[in-house]
Amino acid sequence: MLNDRIEKAIQTHICSGAVVTPAPSKLHKSIDYAVFPGGARIRPLILISVAMACGDDAPSVTDAAASALEMIHCASLVHDDLPCFDNSALRRGKATVHRAFGETTAVLAGDSLIVNAFSAVASQGSVAPHRVIDLVTYLAKYTGFPNGICAGQAWEDEATIDLGAYHLSKTGALFIAATQMGAIAAGHDPEPWQELGARIGQAFQIADDLLDVLSDTSDTGKPAGQDAKNGRPSAVTEYGVEGAQQLLRNVLGGAIASIPSCPGEAQLAKMVQMQSRRMMSAYQPHPNA
Amino acid sequence: MLNDRIEKAIQTHICSGAVVTPAPSKLHKSIDYAVFPGGARIRPLILISVAMACGDDAPSVTDAAASALEMIHCASLVHDDLPCFDNSALRRGKATVHRAFGETTAVLAGDSLIVNAFSAVASQGSVAPHRVIDLVTYLAKYTGFPNGICAGQAWEDEATIDLGAYHLSKTGALFIAATQMGAIAAGHDPEPWQELGARIGQAFQIADDLLDVLSDTSDTGKPAGQDAKNGRPSAVTEYGVEGAQQLLRNVLGGAIASIPSCPGEAQLAKMVQMQSRRMMSAYQPHPNA
Repeated sequence: MLNDRIEKAIQTHICSGAVVTPAPSKLHKSIDYAVFPGGARIRPLILISVAMACGDDAPSVTDAAASALEMIHCASLVHDDLPCFDNSALRRGKATVHRAFGETTAVLAGDSLIVNAFSAVASQGSVAPHRVIDLVTYLAKYTGFPNGICAGQAWEDEATIDLGAYHLSKTGALFIAATQMGAIAAGHDPEPWQELGARIGQAFQIADDLLDVLSDTSDTGKPAGQDAKNGRPSAVTEYGVEGAQQLLRNVLGGAIASIPSCPGEAQLAKMVQMQSRRMMSAYQPHPNA
Repeated sequence: MLNDRIEKAIQTHICSGAVVTPAPSKLHKSIDYAVFPGGARIRPLILISVAMACGDDAPSVTDAAASALEMIHCASLVHDDLPCFDNSALRRGKATVHRAFGETTAVLAGDSLIVNAFSAVASQGSVAPHRVIDLVTYLAKYTGFPNGICAGQAWEDEATIDLGAYHLSKTGALFIAATQMGAIAAGHDPEPWQELGARIGQAFQIADDLLDVLSDTSDTGKPAGQDAKNGRPSAVTEYGVEGAQQLLRNVLGGAIASIPSCPGEAQLAKMVQMQSRRMMSAYQPHPNA
């Protein structure tokens, strides 16, 4: 049900301002290709869940914010897959954008998605101008430099990595954006929602590190063992598999404990628990495998 | 004087939110490198000139808008110079960003500049919320897909190019953004300002085509003859050198005629005339050459 809401919202906002003028078709197709079909849509799911926990009194604003956040996430995947970064051939079980459409189109598809994210949010300016301005501010903060995913990615090219800043910006940023933008969209103060986003982000980072070691390509739709191959820092390298699993349980417990008091607190805790179970089981061998 | 205002504004907004957390230094340096020292800063100059013609009653909003527009322009230069596009070694007389910092950093510097442009505008939300929302909307429109410079660049990779849409989006878009955002920043209706931006953009396109044929690297700080080399459409290919020169004069005349009635109309006409003379003389041989 929430999934339908998310897909419909992204469809609405993907090319804010329908394409009436002649437009370059390859770029058009590549933007759709980068966003549909989606992955777990976990960031918009968290954003909408937080907004609902806060009353969701302006659902069109929530939908725009959720779509914008997912567009930024998809843009980052397109650019991170480029030959100069991970040089990935596969993403979500199909050819990466640059393999399917060429490198120039992939750069422009990422750029366009970043821009369209901001226009999606701005499209709700007449509904709730002050919320929209805060949404633009927070979306930019967690996307760009110095605190966003751009900075996170850039840490990988530094001689010395600040691990805390690296994880917080590379993976944490868009999860913090998810919880804080969810609160903003529903007219609530975003500050108390920072910790939940940070902890969920940390959990996803650890789960991703575990997945990278314990899964194969058919499970994740992308090649396994990339962290070791690319010399990237990983919770598994740092703590071993069992240590990382224990850390993941602790972090998820902390996430639930950090949910701020709000009308839909219990429902939100249930959602986080469900996501946690999903995360914990993702890297277990399939029962019938 | 206007130049000082522009540089100061860009300095203020380049990393909206001072860098207090640890940040990846290479990306930080590359962002500065991409923006300083600047080129002619013609887009922010036009934006501020239009705002002043309209009364400029919220100068901090004007400054943020002008900085944002220049950041988008610089981002587009960084990405357009990449190996998969023009593979340029030189820009503004120095190594391009990817040559100086590497390709991954160049992709991220462009991404960060796009994002920071939107946060620069949003930083003025408490001064004039409705203007800020319109500025985000127009900046996104002329940057992304389907009508912005991303689409303009993407036309070059299409089997059949719609020349009108190509020029309008590739070069025209940010000039239209300049005039319309200048009007918005000063609280005026942007629509009557569309034509002036479009005509200035067209003039710059023709002047650039002439420069590409008639100048050498030492004049422009970038290699000459790129249009023919890359098979790009050009006014010179289409009309010959003299035909293109005549067209440029006509377009500039039309630009001045199109200036909407406003308090600073005469002053603005003078500015456009000055820019026109500069443009007309740029591709003439130096008197002492």
